[in-house]
Amino acid sequence: MARALKLAQRGLFTTDPNPRVGCVLVRGGEIVGEGWHQQAGDSHAEINALRQAGIRAQGSTCYVTLEPCCHRGRTPPCTEALIEAGVVRVVAAMGDPHPKVASQGLAQLREAGLQVEHGLLQEEAQALNVGFVQRLVQGRPWVRCKLAMSLDGATALASGESRWITASPARRDVQRWRARSSAILTGIGTVVRDDPSLNVRYEELQDEVPPGFSRQPLRVVLDRRLAIMAQARLLSLRGPVMIVCADATSPKAESLRGRGVEVISLPVTPQGLDLMALMAVLAAREINELHVECGARLAGSLLQAGLMDELVLYIAPKLMGEAALGLLQLPGIQTMRDCIEVDIKEMRAVGQDWRLVAKIASPSR
Amino acid sequence: MARALKLAQRGLFTTDPNPRVGCVLVRGGEIVGEGWHQQAGDSHAEINALRQAGIRAQGSTCYVTLEPCCHRGRTPPCTEALIEAGVVRVVAAMGDPHPKVASQGLAQLREAGLQVEHGLLQEEAQALNVGFVQRLVQGRPWVRCKLAMSLDGATALASGESRWITASPARRDVQRWRARSSAILTGIGTVVRDDPSLNVRYEELQDEVPPGFSRQPLRVVLDRRLAIMAQARLLSLRGPVMIVCADATSPKAESLRGRGVEVISLPVTPQGLDLMALMAVLAAREINELHVECGARLAGSLLQAGLMDELVLYIAPKLMGEAALGLLQLPGIQTMRDCIEVDIKEMRAVGQDWRLVAKIASPSR
Repeated sequence: MARALKLAQRGLFTTDPNPRVGCVLVRGGEIVGEGWHQQAGDSHAEINALRQAGIRAQGSTCYVTLEPCCHRGRTPPCTEALIEAGVVRVVAAMGDPHPKVASQGLAQLREAGLQVEHGLLQEEAQALNVGFVQRLVQGRPWVRCKLAMSLDGATALASGESRWITASPARRDVQRWRARSSAILTGIGTVVRDDPSLNVRYEELQDEVPPGFSRQPLRVVLDRRLAIMAQARLLSLRGPVMIVCADATSPKAESLRGRGVEVISLPVTPQGLDLMALMAVLAAREINELHVECGARLAGSLLQAGLMDELVLYIAPKLMGEAALGLLQLPGIQTMRDCIEVDIKEMRAVGQDWRLVAKIASPSR
Repeated sequence: MARALKLAQRGLFTTDPNPRVGCVLVRGGEIVGEGWHQQAGDSHAEINALRQAGIRAQGSTCYVTLEPCCHRGRTPPCTEALIEAGVVRVVAAMGDPHPKVASQGLAQLREAGLQVEHGLLQEEAQALNVGFVQRLVQGRPWVRCKLAMSLDGATALASGESRWITASPARRDVQRWRARSSAILTGIGTVVRDDPSLNVRYEELQDEVPPGFSRQPLRVVLDRRLAIMAQARLLSLRGPVMIVCADATSPKAESLRGRGVEVISLPVTPQGLDLMALMAVLAAREINELHVECGARLAGSLLQAGLMDELVLYIAPKLMGEAALGLLQLPGIQTMRDCIEVDIKEMRAVGQDWRLVAKIASPSR
């Protein structure tokens, strides 16, 4: 199964909106077929492994990182293919996360007389598809916020200058997080201040994606009053853009639509555009992992709304002083007990900088 | 030599103001004697090793982490003892750091016909006595500043509340840094705000110091106008206290002296009390490692004066928001190029918190 997970990992940047899945067929202690899902519309991991095994699939055990599908989606059901090929045992790392279809694939295999197990390396399998699981189970994307700061917690100088806090290896590392996400979210404040492109620069991911692969995640800008500049860099670069505002019927909205930009409106709450509603819209669009690069205000709002799941924090080995801008605006915190706790999952060097990955432990109170 | 360094390490909390030194005598591939320096006034590492070896020191090689002394200090010279015992070869990790006496111990041994080498694991040996080396070479202590912050760089809430940012394993870890230092420095702001004791709680260092050992580092408070409260906790606890002010002749100064507190004055510069002069005073008092626990103002002043050598930063897995107080006041920083770069030497988990140790790479511009 560890091997199957490694195979699944190969689809990290390419399967969206599908899950990353890997499959290994073993007979007599020997691997007879391997496969992974490469891209939506292409064949599933099981089918690729069966193809490689050919006749040797007969009597084999199938290790697969996700319960085989039993319905006809973009491709025919994998359960049928496994049964037809004469596989005798199926071990799945995790069940299908969708509450309505969970376990039906395994049940179908069991009915056909195959030996069926699941749960092996389940945690690792779920981590690989954290967004896919969350979307199907909770109806919202997995929200991962990337921030960068100096050792003393500054994101910019008082002058607003912030380029560059981190060095190039860390900035290159960010491309991987962008590339694995279904969409990238930012706020109008960041667009006005930094004019970022927020696209995936595939030239920095050579050897990690198939030649010619060029999917760009949906870029989403929260821009209540449609203040975005006509010449904003992210409007001129290839790839889909969605602008979320309070009134999508204005002439500015129309003019943006004329440039191929999607403009939608959301309800406005006292805290600004309704972030819960935004998550529902994105989940309906099959957004699994939502990558956020934004300023202290939007990051703080997401956190206080309980909508930030993971924090990826780059820490640069420099001191900038406290006149600088901070990382997060959290006006709700009055006492030490109000502080938001996080669970640090990883701390590692990336070039001269450090990268911290944390799960948000108490997202809202 | 690695073994000798391990022995030297045992004196980490107890040798002050002397260096930590370890010694191993080897004959015919076998260790015949081991020793380390335990406390100022007690015998040196070499003498302890010779005592253990007895007659077997004859013909042995001596591995010692610091060049043996050749002068009569608190104890007789070690060079003579090594020669008399019939040691034939001496390998020292590092020379005596004092520019005026360096190499004389090794020279004396060489003249007596012993084979002499040095430089083996020199870096590790110097790191163990970083303060001793810096005081003798540069005439000022090694300044190590301990700070604690949330993941987003806050040291306190807007209300001033800061207890506790870190958890108890990290606070216990701080006791080790305090215990290895010759003196502990703070500012009056911290005394007024937090009323800290700044002593070493030896009950938290059990098994790491000899039974009954109770040396307290000199506690130094920068208090220009002698604003310290009569009931301040650090005045009532056992152990020496020095208060540094602008005018040490005032009645308040006299009254503090009556309580056994040393009060001295230093020149005042536009940035406050003259920190360079403070370092000279402390070096003259044989302060090797100066441990600093203070607020954003003093920490920033030390840093901008080029007087902070090392930063020990505890990072708590919580988010506090940007209304909170920052880590460092660095008014001199206007552009990204002004930022102070540090060299991260260590990043490790201490309980649920993380500890970062960094050398200051560009202390002043």
